[in-house]
Amino acid sequence: MGNSPDLSPSRKTEIEKSFEVQSMMHHFSASLDHVAAGAVTVSAPVTADVRQQHGFAHAGLTFSIGDSAAGYAALSVMPPDTEVLTTEMKINLLAPAQGSRLVAHGRVIKAGKRLVIVQADVFSLSDQGESHIALLTGTMIPVPKK
Amino acid sequence: MGNSPDLSPSRKTEIEKSFEVQSMMHHFSASLDHVAAGAVTVSAPVTADVRQQHGFAHAGLTFSIGDSAAGYAALSVMPPDTEVLTTEMKINLLAPAQGSRLVAHGRVIKAGKRLVIVQADVFSLSDQGESHIALLTGTMIPVPKK
Amino acid sequence: MGNSPDLSPSRKTEIEKSFEVQSMMHHFSASLDHVAAGAVTVSAPVTADVRQQHGFAHAGLTFSIGDSAAGYAALSVMPPDTEVLTTEMKINLLAPAQGSRLVAHGRVIKAGKRLVIVQADVFSLSDQGESHIALLTGTMIPVPKK
Amino acid sequence: MGNSPDLSPSRKTEIEKSFEVQSMMHHFSASLDHVAAGAVTVSAPVTADVRQQHGFAHAGLTFSIGDSAAGYAALSVMPPDTEVLTTEMKINLLAPAQGSRLVAHGRVIKAGKRLVIVQADVFSLSDQGESHIALLTGTMIPVPKK
Repeated sequence: MGNSPDLSPSRKTEIEKSFEVQSMMHHFSASLDHVAAGAVTVSAPVTADVRQQHGFAHAGLTFSIGDSAAGYAALSVMPPDTEVLTTEMKINLLAPAQGSRLVAHGRVIKAGKRLVIVQADVFSLSDQGESHIALLTGTMIPVPKK
Repeated sequence: MGNSPDLSPSRKTEIEKSFEVQSMMHHFSASLDHVAAGAVTVSAPVTADVRQQHGFAHAGLTFSIGDSAAGYAALSVMPPDTEVLTTEMKINLLAPAQGSRLVAHGRVIKAGKRLVIVQADVFSLSDQGESHIALLTGTMIPVPKK
Repeated sequence: MGNSPDLSPSRKTEIEKSFEVQSMMHHFSASLDHVAAGAVTVSAPVTADVRQQHGFAHAGLTFSIGDSAAGYAALSVMPPDTEVLTTEMKINLLAPAQGSRLVAHGRVIKAGKRLVIVQADVFSLSDQGESHIALLTGTMIPVPKK
Repeated sequence: MGNSPDLSPSRKTEIEKSFEVQSMMHHFSASLDHVAAGAVTVSAPVTADVRQQHGFAHAGLTFSIGDSAAGYAALSVMPPDTEVLTTEMKINLLAPAQGSRLVAHGRVIKAGKRLVIVQADVFSLSDQGESHIALLTGTMIPVPKK
């Protein structure tokens, strides 16, 4: 995305508003940490509410913040009055989601007119440092804003 | 899975206990609706807490119950003292997750010694009937139970 | 695809012509075995030319005929003057591609206006019978015919 | 893979020999261009034999060299007397495979004991320069060498 345009202030506001109305992100106490053209970071705490049967963060949390980071990265490079929807997303889980917080860095691989290919890397943070726990690769489809 | 063995009562109990301790499933008010050898159904209500920016259920919810249904389907055909972990899962989203409840049917495609290939179909239920909203395809890896 | 329209003769001819001009399919001596609305079968021999390092058929052959079967299944339900392109395809390999011939059955999961979700199952045939060796899941995008 | 060990000469020889016996790679006139620890490059000409119906290189060729580059990248970081098999691979196609040659750069994302997560980027080369045409993400499974 070396030649991507700067992120306009209005686009940044739009992304922040969209994030605000995603009740699922509130539900996870997730935060939108960084928004740039083609690169967005979303993170969430690993609370007692989001665990799987082994006590690690559930893959659904990892997926949710990875998908959001990737989707907003796509949205950051779309023309005005456009939204994006996930059409497909694959997650490769690299390590157990230990630690107290998950951080997802989404980025745009290729922004086409009809489809946007995205990736996200998810890391878990703990006292021992950070660990790369997941890689997501997927496709977003631009749709006119309602 | 035509020739799969019947599900033993102990295995069924084990799956129910494992589901119980997944706080994420509680968090979503999800229920384990059906457990058979190689086929498991999980569902969850679409509450105000789990929406994305357009008001539909978040893909993270669809993914979470699809992944759980597929994972327990894999577990249902494993030998005793074995658990499974998701190693990769791809979700294709087929339609917006409208409606009041999502239902995921997981099944085993191929149970190998080292890897189990699984699928899940997710449907949304509304007054208008049911709609096929997602297809998940992934890989579970058996691990010794701790 | 229970309610899909019958395949028109002109569409069938179009698919046969398209298959003919795919030099890769010739190269593999592949054949278009069956064309119905939403379901297409493509097969190819496992010759000495298409092996991987262990002597089994290369995953590239399995992928190629699975992708073709899935793509033509999508094309079979498209409106006239439309073509399809693969935008993403995942292959899960279930067993080694032993045997003398591979057969791919493609089918349409969901035909939308903007995207078509498809699957293909690939089987290997040998003296010992048939074996399910791969499952492909992917997305085709309709494009106007040139 | 910043801290990966250097590639041993014996491992490099092993990869070269394995590539040699893949008849599919010969069939495509593919070459093993670069082998380092965790990073392997494979390329192939776009001949008249490997086209799809629009005259571009068939996705099967793109997949084949991407999968090979990713697989050998995995093999390059495995212990001695180990081989790898692809268990799943997803390809996102980014642009038509125009041009005269395809080049695939495979790399290791995470080398675990039981699974190795890999990626490959595929570029097409033409008089107009190079174009990023595909991204592959997948899983290799180590197996004892026979």
